[in-house]
Amino acid sequence: MLGVRCLLRSVRFCSSAPFPKHKPSAKLSVRDALGAQNASGERIKIQGWIRSVRSQKEVLFLHVNDGSSLESLQVVADSGLDSRELNFGSSVEVQGQLIKSPSKRQNVELKAEKIKVIGNCDAKDFPIKYKERHPLEYLRQYPHFRCRTNVLGSILRIRSEATAAIHSFFKPSGKLKVPEENFFNVPAFLTVSGQLHLEVMSGAFTQVFTFGPTFRAENSQSRRHLAEFYMIEAEISFVDSLQDLMQVIEELFKATTMMVLSKCPEDVELCHKFIAPGQKDRLEHMLKNNFLIISYTEAVEILKQASQNFTFTPEWGADLRTEHEKYLVKHCGNIPVFVINYPLTLKPFYMRDNEDGPQHTVAAVDLLVPGVGELFGGGLREERYHFLEERLARYLDLRRFGSVPHGGFGMGFERYLQCILGVDNIKDVIPFPRFPHSCLL
Amino acid sequence: MLGVRCLLRSVRFCSSAPFPKHKPSAKLSVRDALGAQNASGERIKIQGWIRSVRSQKEVLFLHVNDGSSLESLQVVADSGLDSRELNFGSSVEVQGQLIKSPSKRQNVELKAEKIKVIGNCDAKDFPIKYKERHPLEYLRQYPHFRCRTNVLGSILRIRSEATAAIHSFFKPSGKLKVPEENFFNVPAFLTVSGQLHLEVMSGAFTQVFTFGPTFRAENSQSRRHLAEFYMIEAEISFVDSLQDLMQVIEELFKATTMMVLSKCPEDVELCHKFIAPGQKDRLEHMLKNNFLIISYTEAVEILKQASQNFTFTPEWGADLRTEHEKYLVKHCGNIPVFVINYPLTLKPFYMRDNEDGPQHTVAAVDLLVPGVGELFGGGLREERYHFLEERLARYLDLRRFGSVPHGGFGMGFERYLQCILGVDNIKDVIPFPRFPHSCLL
Repeated sequence: MLGVRCLLRSVRFCSSAPFPKHKPSAKLSVRDALGAQNASGERIKIQGWIRSVRSQKEVLFLHVNDGSSLESLQVVADSGLDSRELNFGSSVEVQGQLIKSPSKRQNVELKAEKIKVIGNCDAKDFPIKYKERHPLEYLRQYPHFRCRTNVLGSILRIRSEATAAIHSFFKPSGKLKVPEENFFNVPAFLTVSGQLHLEVMSGAFTQVFTFGPTFRAENSQSRRHLAEFYMIEAEISFVDSLQDLMQVIEELFKATTMMVLSKCPEDVELCHKFIAPGQKDRLEHMLKNNFLIISYTEAVEILKQASQNFTFTPEWGADLRTEHEKYLVKHCGNIPVFVINYPLTLKPFYMRDNEDGPQHTVAAVDLLVPGVGELFGGGLREERYHFLEERLARYLDLRRFGSVPHGGFGMGFERYLQCILGVDNIKDVIPFPRFPHSCLL
Repeated sequence: MLGVRCLLRSVRFCSSAPFPKHKPSAKLSVRDALGAQNASGERIKIQGWIRSVRSQKEVLFLHVNDGSSLESLQVVADSGLDSRELNFGSSVEVQGQLIKSPSKRQNVELKAEKIKVIGNCDAKDFPIKYKERHPLEYLRQYPHFRCRTNVLGSILRIRSEATAAIHSFFKPSGKLKVPEENFFNVPAFLTVSGQLHLEVMSGAFTQVFTFGPTFRAENSQSRRHLAEFYMIEAEISFVDSLQDLMQVIEELFKATTMMVLSKCPEDVELCHKFIAPGQKDRLEHMLKNNFLIISYTEAVEILKQASQNFTFTPEWGADLRTEHEKYLVKHCGNIPVFVINYPLTLKPFYMRDNEDGPQHTVAAVDLLVPGVGELFGGGLREERYHFLEERLARYLDLRRFGSVPHGGFGMGFERYLQCILGVDNIKDVIPFPRFPHSCLL
């Protein structure tokens, strides 16, 4: 090659295997090892972190986990292979034979021939303790270690599957986000929504969505708010009724959830069992029923007739508070409920005017769900030029050239995970939570 | 339901159809209409924007596009259906019969029975002009309209497919991003990389990745830099050679590109034909050859022996400049080339020490590609506690408890699109480009 040595590598391109085997011997993930049918002594290698150690006179039992599944792989070794460094938390590489397990507690086990400690872990100093079930609040102090626990491992695997399910639900996609302040000669801010960008795209593509980090400087320490959260937003062109929009929202919720349930049933079961007993039935109840619809006006009537005393008195024209949302969901038999047609003064300028009266409303919709409250917010956008005429020039421009009726919505991804898993605090369903006065990592 | 009316909707849950048909009549996307086999007069409805109007004595021809494909659908109508509002850019809804086209230029056409103008478009004021091929620089002034052109439409569809291909390459995933300043009692910044977060996750999951917006306040107006760009980053645990890392990088590039080529061949062809003639052959050349590997030291030698005069004299210990990267890629026959083992002083503190000398290097790798230069950057991370002992407490913590060898990389998504499509300016492969002194939208 033009006179200078370029080392040619012996890499065969193989499009069907995303992550290659890293070594000539058969390296398996714990998940793949556990799933092996008819194990009969194949030589394999696994790598992971020790989750338990049990040393008997002649035999040593280890459980090794590599994050690929909730279940760990049992390693059985001659006690001669034991060492001081085989601690809870240490990382190891184990070579041996994959065999059918004589015990009923697992299908397969790894008969170790060689155990190599890759990284030691001093159990005294390690904040995660062997055999202890740490409360979620305790784990939150250790954002850099908590993903090594069963429960956070499960939640993060579910988060990953839910992300994939949402991407597969939408096609095609549009992606966008707003950057740093004081750099563009004009004030620029972190985005609180990608909606206006999506509206631009929906003038050329009939279905667009975005999924990414969103920033809100709300000074709230609640279990439902984060300063940075992930949001799914969609805009659909030529939509002229809230009904159509609500159908997409309901299908997105149900299709994503069904996919998550089928892809990682053990992880979901762990959450439902230990974090939120009873959540399995509550989720099934949500999935098997058609979501309900009430108008904002009906919602206020329901609240006014309630025997319950609210901190904030329900009144037409005022926003629904958390306590109101909770009551409405319970009132609807714990089925998710769409609240539609909000007062014009409560919603942003771009919501479509219903031209009704005397109680003037817009075609906005929120979906309230059990345990979480508002999960989706959306509406039809005002596509009529003269309704927007006194507003911003660029946004007006979008209505001048081939305008179309359209609508869209946003869903908070962390609230979605809270809703299906029954996780009480939003900080436990995101890897690195940021909220007022806290940015640990 | 507890005495108050909740309107039950007649929505059937159907997990196989992500976006539902919005109307009882058969509404088709332009893409689906064009793909209809044996069209024989089925009544359908389409919605979209007029891309061309041709009015003859008795017949009216329209081309309607809805963003679902590069090709528009030909609508044939009796001239009686013509109206002043049927302009280039107007949005319309057309009902009629889908028939086999008598012309050889298309397979099917829509014999219109009804044409409804949804949103008028005044051609005089509309900055995109009929039949004109606007330069990309011109279109950049209109971020809110340019997605209605053929070329931006194609690039955005390709961007969407490439995103999907990258997500399907990686499983499972980790997601993260850093939020707003002055809100957390400690200084917080927009992320320039998710790597440190990925390293946390790679202490419990053996393969993690993230794909999202990334921010760099580089004061560069170059055609290769953006203030906000999208980056794919991955960390892989138990990796102890650059070879393994390079294999993943090469496979990611090739698998993603093959997927894009197979999913939207017409869109890619448009780019290759009109934006970057010759790019098709250049891309094939990249795909069919094994990527090359040279060390940083070899790279500097090649540059020193070059007959070309560089603005920056190549010297061991100095960073490779754009002019150097270009020369190296050309020198390697326009095959992507990995440059490995950079001087320790050039790379961040967490790169793994090669413990060589007297020219002290670290196990870092950059992938240089034709037309773009640096596309990937990565390396093995220093997993040995004592090498990091004088650094930050929390980062050190990650090496104290079950540390493992690991490595990772990042790929600039916009540069990837530039590389495969031959698009010269990075601002044309992102929907809303932000760069110093420019945040139009």
